[in-house]
Parts: sequence; structure tokens; C-alpha cells
Amino acid sequence: MENIWIYETHTDGYEVRWRITDIIHQETTPFQKLAVVETVEWGKALILDGALQITEKDEFIYHEMIAHVAMNSHPRPEKVLIIGGGDGGTLREVVKHQCLQQADMVEIDKRVVEISQQYFPQVASAISDSRVNLHITDGLVYVRDTAEKYDLVIVDSSDPVGPAIQLFSRKFYEDVNKILKEDGMLVVQSESPVFFTEHFRNCFFNMKPVFPIVEVYLATIATYVSGPWSFTAGSKKHNPRKIHNDSPVLTGLKYYNEDMHQAAFCLPQYVQEIIR
Amino acid sequence: MENIWIYETHTDGYEVRWRITDIIHQETTPFQKLAVVETVEWGKALILDGALQITEKDEFIYHEMIAHVAMNSHPRPEKVLIIGGGDGGTLREVVKHQCLQQADMVEIDKRVVEISQQYFPQVASAISDSRVNLHITDGLVYVRDTAEKYDLVIVDSSDPVGPAIQLFSRKFYEDVNKILKEDGMLVVQSESPVFFTEHFRNCFFNMKPVFPIVEVYLATIATYVSGPWSFTAGSKKHNPRKIHNDSPVLTGLKYYNEDMHQAAFCLPQYVQEIIR
Repeated sequence: MENIWIYETHTDGYEVRWRITDIIHQETTPFQKLAVVETVEWGKALILDGALQITEKDEFIYHEMIAHVAMNSHPRPEKVLIIGGGDGGTLREVVKHQCLQQADMVEIDKRVVEISQQYFPQVASAISDSRVNLHITDGLVYVRDTAEKYDLVIVDSSDPVGPAIQLFSRKFYEDVNKILKEDGMLVVQSESPVFFTEHFRNCFFNMKPVFPIVEVYLATIATYVSGPWSFTAGSKKHNPRKIHNDSPVLTGLKYYNEDMHQAAFCLPQYVQEIIR
Repeated sequence: MENIWIYETHTDGYEVRWRITDIIHQETTPFQKLAVVETVEWGKALILDGALQITEKDEFIYHEMIAHVAMNSHPRPEKVLIIGGGDGGTLREVVKHQCLQQADMVEIDKRVVEISQQYFPQVASAISDSRVNLHITDGLVYVRDTAEKYDLVIVDSSDPVGPAIQLFSRKFYEDVNKILKEDGMLVVQSESPVFFTEHFRNCFFNMKPVFPIVEVYLATIATYVSGPWSFTAGSKKHNPRKIHNDSPVLTGLKYYNEDMHQAAFCLPQYVQEIIR
């Protein structure tokens, strides 16, 4: 077949299509529709409820930027919680840091984990790391009920529709605040400031009353909706703009570097104005 | 009509579509196909040979970033040449600088100028500025033959297909070099490093032998192909990364600010590797 395309309808007036050669897998899990396709230009892609989540070729951008900014702006992140991120990509970046002692990953949909291990082994590789505990449960419930305390919580959620919607609420950020140590930090993916402006703004203003320091940073991810993608960091003590980790910055990364850490927090005027 | 879409086929495997409500104008000029459409979400858009050039809603990003980085990294840009840019957006940003004494704009297709004046008056506003000279001619010929010397040359071209292809050649950069003053600077739009990697790389390596300082910077423009968009600066003396202009940075801009000037030159690892 020569002419198969998948469509992503981002808004009422903007749609993207990617040419694929094969639908490798599709199923409906208890939580969402899940598909793995082979694209012509980006390698295999994981799609949840019609939204492209990762491609083999550029997943490194999102995963490096959600993981290393926080891992480097905290002086010694030994104990890390990842909410969502069932594909394992964020975890793979987190475990690269030698100071890490324990990473708990809480994914609501075990099929995302299993499918990633089967079809994206380079992404899912760290799930078997000895420092990792995988919890298949609702992140909201886990955060509310756990007795653990973390240096860092990373919310690597899908879009705030379906199972992920509560992960953008003030109540959830308050619960996260309670399970962070006194110098702990939260980082969440916070959507496109251009195409999903309300989600982006709400995330910032839901986090603002909960943490003394709230900062937004951006990365540009070609296979997400066009324009910048945002991440929002809520911190109890350390300024996420600065590198506090004593360990040398990891080499061999493909997007993140020390300059990009600082640069990512420089916001265009129109983005600054959304959260003024 | 409820369901009219324009398509942009960026590569063999990636296509974007924008919903429109009206085709306001279309014609075939001696140089290209030109259309003005009313989009649902981005206001009016100018399309040349099927490629979206500007939208009312986000044209500020491209125009501010191609103009103000150079205007601020040169100490006193009094005399500026713009090649292309017939819509007037780059010119509009250049004339905001009080130090400017003369701006020559060389556009090959007078219909782009006229259509912009008719349908995008906010973009084309500076074409009537008293410091501006409009030349309707081939930029290659103008640069080869002019006796003028400039502080700054900005190449605001369309993609390197059709009339713009020679504007990315080493020969052209050598000709530009000759019409720059001894501390002059060239800035060009240099395509998407992700989707048009070869054009991006060629631009850099064609400029590299001609100028002692060549630096790439990035901006993220939602209505261009997704991922970062690149600009490449070739400079005889001043480092384009730094602000040398003594005048205070303009206020009231929507993308550019001092922080973004610096941040735009920080490149992700994968972009650095393309031009290593």
C-alpha cells in the first residue's frame, strides 16, 4: 500500500497527516485506544486516542527535556516519581543519572508499558533497571495515598482529555506538594502555549498558589503540534532555571545541553503575556 | 462553505492542512502562484507556490526574529538592504529602529508588494516610509551591480525552489560580502533544520568560507513546518550573538526580547551536529 496516512486533528482548523506504511498493532485498552504504526519518515510511532505520543526518530527531545532540566536543577535527585510515561522514555533519561537511587513509575494503563517493551525496546529499556519500581495504578490515587517522599516528581501525562485531565488540577498539585521533600521539585508537560493556550495557562495558574517558585520552559518537538511545547516546573527551594547538580552534565545527549537548559526558560513575549 | 481546507505538502510523508473560509484572491504572476486566503484560526494568509508565507496572527515571529537580531547586534545599522520580503513585514521591523537612515528593499515580484499593501496593510505599512527605497528587480542582479555599501543585508526569501534558489549559493554570499561595509552583517532565513536539513546545512557551509563569523539561531513559528525554523548570520566583525546596539531594546514587540536574542543562538545537540 502506497498511500496510507494517519491524521491528527489538533484544532477545528488545523490538521496534520503522516504517511505510514503499516499499522503494526491496534487495540482498545480499558483506558484508551492504542496503536503502533510504521511511519515513512519517523520510524515507528505510538498513538493514543488518535494523538501521536512518540516516534522513534524524535522521542529524545521530549524525554530529554522533561527529565534532565529537573534532574540537573536539583542538587541530588536520589528518589524520583514519574506519573504516566508508560513508554519508559522519561525513565530511560532519569536513570542515566548516577545519583539516582530509586525511581517509581506509576502508569495507569499497563498495556502502554507492555506495548512499548514489545515495539519500542530502546525507549522502554530502563523499565527493567534494578532501581525502578513499576506501579500499574492511577497516579492520582498513588500520589494521594503513598507514604514515600520524593526529591522530584515528573508528570509525563497525555493530553488533558480522558484519563489525564485531573493531572492538571490544583488539587493534584497540592497532593504532589505533600509527597515532595522540603527541597523537592515538580515538572509537568504543560501542552502547547499556541494551540492549547487554556490548558497551558490553567496549568501555570493551578501550580502558582502551591509552589513558591513556578517557571515555564519550552522545547520544539517536530512531531507534536507545531510551535513550542511547554513544560512547567514547581519548586519548593531550588530555581529550576539553574543547574545545581554537582555531577557533570551528561554527555551523549541529542537535545539537552547546559546552554539549552538556560535558553529553554527564555520565553517569547507572547508566551510571557499568557501567564502574566 | 464549511469544509474547505488548504494543504501544504512539506515532505513525502508529512502534510499540514488549514481550514479556510474564503479564497480572497489568486493569480499567477510572472514568477509564482500567489493566493490570499482567509483561515479559520490565523486570520488572512499569503501563499506563494502552495507554501504559506505569512498569517496575520503569527507573522510577527518570523519578521521580528529576522530583523531585530541583526539590527541589535550591529552597533549602528544606518543603511540596510532587504532582499525579498516583498510583503513588507521585515521592513516594518527594521524601520522601528531610530538609527536607520536608509532601507533598500529588492523584491523580484511586484505583485507580492501590491497584494500585501492591499490585503495586509499592517504588514506592508513601512513600504511608504520616507527612508525606504523599493526596487522591483532580481536580488541577485541588484547585489552584483549596486555601488551602495550596507551595514546590514537581510535575505528574506521564499524556499530555495523557484526564484529563490540562487539566494542560497556561495556565489551570492560572496557578492553580498562585497557590498557590506567593513563591519557589516548578513542574515538569511535558512529553512527548517529538521525537514529541510540539506538546505539548512548547505546554507551554513556556503556562508562559512565567506564570513569570519557564521552563527545559526532558531525561532519556533507555528504556521511554518513544525519544529524549529533557522536563521543564519554571517558577520565581518560583530558577534551576532551579542547585543552591540547602544539604543535600548525596543519595547512593544511580541516575540523578541533581550533574553530571546541570546537564547535563540543556543542550539540543541542534534542541530549542532548537522553543521559540525
